[in-house]
Amino acid sequence: MSMCTSADCKLCEFLSSKEDLETSFNRVETQKAKCKFGKEGVCCKLCSNGPCKITPKSPKGVCGADADTIVSRNFLRAIAAGSACYLHVVETTARNLKDIGEGKGNLKIKSPETLDKLAEIFDIVESDINAKAIKVADEVLRDLYKPRFEKMELVEKLAYAPRYHKWKELNILPGGAKSEVFDALVKTSTNLNSDPVDMLLNSLQLGIATGIYGLVLTNLLNDVMLGAPKIRQAKVGFRVIDEDYINIMITGHQHSDIAHLQDKLIDENVTKRAMKLGAKGFRLVGCTCVGQDLQLRGEHYTEVFSGHAGNNYTSEAVLATGAIDLIVSEFNCTIPGLEPVAEKFNVKTICIDDVAKKKNAEYINFDMRNAEEISEKIIYEALESYKNRRNNVTIDIPKDHGHDDVVTGVSEGSLKEFLGGNWSGLIDLIAKGKIKGIAGVVGCSNLTAKGHDVFTVELTKELIKRDILVLSAGCSSGGLENVGLMSPGAADLAGDNLRDVCKSLGIPPVLNFGPCLAIGRLEMVATELAENLGIDIPQLPLVLSAPQWLEEQALADAAFGLSLGLPLHVAISPFIDGSEVVTKVLKEDLVNITGGKLIVQEDVIKAADELEEIIENRRIGLNI
Amino acid sequence: MSMCTSADCKLCEFLSSKEDLETSFNRVETQKAKCKFGKEGVCCKLCSNGPCKITPKSPKGVCGADADTIVSRNFLRAIAAGSACYLHVVETTARNLKDIGEGKGNLKIKSPETLDKLAEIFDIVESDINAKAIKVADEVLRDLYKPRFEKMELVEKLAYAPRYHKWKELNILPGGAKSEVFDALVKTSTNLNSDPVDMLLNSLQLGIATGIYGLVLTNLLNDVMLGAPKIRQAKVGFRVIDEDYINIMITGHQHSDIAHLQDKLIDENVTKRAMKLGAKGFRLVGCTCVGQDLQLRGEHYTEVFSGHAGNNYTSEAVLATGAIDLIVSEFNCTIPGLEPVAEKFNVKTICIDDVAKKKNAEYINFDMRNAEEISEKIIYEALESYKNRRNNVTIDIPKDHGHDDVVTGVSEGSLKEFLGGNWSGLIDLIAKGKIKGIAGVVGCSNLTAKGHDVFTVELTKELIKRDILVLSAGCSSGGLENVGLMSPGAADLAGDNLRDVCKSLGIPPVLNFGPCLAIGRLEMVATELAENLGIDIPQLPLVLSAPQWLEEQALADAAFGLSLGLPLHVAISPFIDGSEVVTKVLKEDLVNITGGKLIVQEDVIKAADELEEIIENRRIGLNI
Repeated sequence: MSMCTSADCKLCEFLSSKEDLETSFNRVETQKAKCKFGKEGVCCKLCSNGPCKITPKSPKGVCGADADTIVSRNFLRAIAAGSACYLHVVETTARNLKDIGEGKGNLKIKSPETLDKLAEIFDIVESDINAKAIKVADEVLRDLYKPRFEKMELVEKLAYAPRYHKWKELNILPGGAKSEVFDALVKTSTNLNSDPVDMLLNSLQLGIATGIYGLVLTNLLNDVMLGAPKIRQAKVGFRVIDEDYINIMITGHQHSDIAHLQDKLIDENVTKRAMKLGAKGFRLVGCTCVGQDLQLRGEHYTEVFSGHAGNNYTSEAVLATGAIDLIVSEFNCTIPGLEPVAEKFNVKTICIDDVAKKKNAEYINFDMRNAEEISEKIIYEALESYKNRRNNVTIDIPKDHGHDDVVTGVSEGSLKEFLGGNWSGLIDLIAKGKIKGIAGVVGCSNLTAKGHDVFTVELTKELIKRDILVLSAGCSSGGLENVGLMSPGAADLAGDNLRDVCKSLGIPPVLNFGPCLAIGRLEMVATELAENLGIDIPQLPLVLSAPQWLEEQALADAAFGLSLGLPLHVAISPFIDGSEVVTKVLKEDLVNITGGKLIVQEDVIKAADELEEIIENRRIGLNI
Repeated sequence: MSMCTSADCKLCEFLSSKEDLETSFNRVETQKAKCKFGKEGVCCKLCSNGPCKITPKSPKGVCGADADTIVSRNFLRAIAAGSACYLHVVETTARNLKDIGEGKGNLKIKSPETLDKLAEIFDIVESDINAKAIKVADEVLRDLYKPRFEKMELVEKLAYAPRYHKWKELNILPGGAKSEVFDALVKTSTNLNSDPVDMLLNSLQLGIATGIYGLVLTNLLNDVMLGAPKIRQAKVGFRVIDEDYINIMITGHQHSDIAHLQDKLIDENVTKRAMKLGAKGFRLVGCTCVGQDLQLRGEHYTEVFSGHAGNNYTSEAVLATGAIDLIVSEFNCTIPGLEPVAEKFNVKTICIDDVAKKKNAEYINFDMRNAEEISEKIIYEALESYKNRRNNVTIDIPKDHGHDDVVTGVSEGSLKEFLGGNWSGLIDLIAKGKIKGIAGVVGCSNLTAKGHDVFTVELTKELIKRDILVLSAGCSSGGLENVGLMSPGAADLAGDNLRDVCKSLGIPPVLNFGPCLAIGRLEMVATELAENLGIDIPQLPLVLSAPQWLEEQALADAAFGLSLGLPLHVAISPFIDGSEVVTKVLKEDLVNITGGKLIVQEDVIKAADELEEIIENRRIGLNI
């Protein structure tokens, strides 16, 4: 079968060797004929008079909506959906923290330090650790559930002050996040809002809610429950899969939903049950962002976490190794393509959040109150599966895939600690030009921007060659680490200055912050750098690229980046090219509004050139 | 310019006479080439690998989503959006009631009886009328804002008990409505839920939330604030527009947002300001559902309400009479096509809810607290507009359009009162076969089911000919009344039995319940009939048709109808034909689940045949 390429050659080889396996890599070939109207965002399916599409001969839909209205409506709805996803995650996370505080699930708080930090930010005075956890969680939940006309209160407490004031001035401070999403859905329904500028500003507002709550707070709340990241080296790629264990592949973004299971899987009695069947025990195999998050906190989970195998579009191949015995899905990116592969390899799927219920899966609603019962159910199913399938399935793990020495565990906290407890060293390196600037290369992987991870990897190589330090978060990280760019040896691919820095510090030129949620950690780094310099974020020699954005969530991330005033590159247009107004606002006008700028560039070198130029101009602005 | 037809010939004549006016009637001709994939619901634009479309050669999207997943995802998202719209309306309505109770806006409660009824249903014991209003509103708001895992409490109090138990048994009782919508949006995002059955059940759940809150409760809360409907005769059509007045056209669904304005416009001092400019005063011209609602309660607003001019796709023509001086939009269906017509006729638009912000409009956020100020602003703008535009614009009102004797003000309450205070007379007529059954012909108007209102009018004629009493609510009502079917003389078009009934009661064979929101009133009638007969709703000789459904809201209404266990006909498929599973569940399996059934039939006679057959079978089931 014809298939698309990947930056990860060994993955391609593996997939090519599986002749009767159909994956996304094959289907991308059968879906090559793209609808021009859909690509440009000028298709509208909101009513029974449609679908309408904008063409030179039909410049308006039946109702009179023009390209600007249709494009901005589609754009805002996609961002609202993406924002809803992240906000669902932070809500679940806050509820789990609250439940843990209330003693449910019998779990302990792993980072009292982060809890203290949050309590301080939230102005909570409370000495009891559990009561503190409850109060912190309640503050988050209270904000999420506010009506839209009441502004959320934690934004001011968490956002960088100059940004907060800019947002206030622009009147884009978000009201209760769930109501904001809700009303954006209303706004984009049939014959409601038609104003592209209003809808674009609303997108930024959702970006702020996404960023502060879905990204920044989710990380910090997870740190409390799961332990703060610590820098260390780890194995990645298919080599992490060990057939001697009963392997559970986790997909999703709601890491605290499996906190109880993690602890349970290394319980002596549970391990014994695995051993009785001839396995060495249980392992969680990392895949998608929950795997990145496990990897990030790997220090705390060395016994149960086997390592990160790969990103979203690697997951079908991970299943095809035959060594996975059970899938536990708690959110996206559980691609539907997993369903037939799971069936073929006799792997059961258990979904623990109905928003991510898969067609052929069993559903059990996760609730910390029933954590014990749910973990037992998962363990039971994993044991049953191992027992029944291992004799009937060929296991083929490409053990040469991946690396042993990936640097991981990087966070706003661990990085600062690594740099000596403050940012002055990094700032100094930037000031001296040893590091020209910083690029966050983040987001998903898709299969259409030159192939699986191809654009991400090529752009990253191009940026480090120009002495630009790359920070990554999301499926992009999974791609970059699997091709070796997060191993210390990758320093050799960097420009002379950056190479020296990396060698002297023993770090790779591409730092792995973990899951897409950790884009919130990049924001914290940016804020701390700006604070140290006494400048606003748009003045930093810092750029963003989500070259291979895939999902609606990525667009919500993008909206956060643009509200922060950052230049944001994408290799595939977010379905906006059909509207002159939307294109102009996002690519030109925005720079005078928030400072942000959307850059759509499908050529790697040109994208790197533009990002480098921005960094250089920022350096000039700072007189460095 | 080529244009589509309408059941309303005089409207067509008027539009044809305006040679340089482009309206939706013209644009439907330029948008005739429909995308097959969009129509069938098999187009997916959720990620950057797309758009994907399902074809025999590409049966899955890149991610692996098949037609069933894609169709059900699109369907659920549309219903979530429609549901969100209605829930936005009920939230606004409850907030307005609460504000009135708190003395804001200086408005009085017009129906203490309805308030008492609600308080009783809600188990509220409170003697002070204002405190009671606040408590009633709070109960509604509290339910809307519950998290998804907490079931809403008013469902049990408002729904017909056998239905409530059925829903409970099916596990489709909705949690907090806003969270339900929110999570449905999450569920339908990239790489999340892929299970069509889960998503279809979720659609029903949203249907229940839509119906009980967005429909039933909105009506009752509005009755409290605006007065309960009373049956009377009224003028409809373009003839209601009087150029001697300063005319404000209202579009939307949030009637209580203009309650203050209504009262203000007949204030002596305000009228004097109009008179100073040579006008006789102010008039609100009804258009879309808010116009239907004004008409429904016309008894309370005789001085300020000129009458209902027409439905959604009549609104461009209403503007083109030149006699409208200001548009106030508070929700949909304010079609974008109004924008250039408003510009052409020099009419300013003021939007008072940002979800419905129009491109060329001024936006002032309505809040009962600022009602005085907002009304003054609207009055000022209307006066200015009248002063500036009347000398520069040709006024052309087709005064022969419409009717003088339309029966209106029909509600669950006024109808029962009209029938002698109980339903036994109606039940008797049904039992005796004088009325064969009841059909709710409801929902929007579109331009594609044989033309503007064509299917609605033809089907209604066919049904009444078969002695089926038709109840209508929504833009369908606007169409039906403008062609005379809601005038007593229409009895002559009914079958012999129904004609006799109509003549003896002095009513038309088609009863106007008002706006689409009043579909909730139909549910109340159905419930009371079922209760009287001691049967469940699916046993009633009652069918629904939303022949010319247009909007996402109509799909949410449809989901309510299906959850009630009613057969529901549509003339245009709701973009589901590409999925065998979705089609089978909705058209076949559902009858064994809730009792409901989706009927897609684009032929008027065949549709009438099928609906009649169902009614006849129900009669057999009841031994009548």
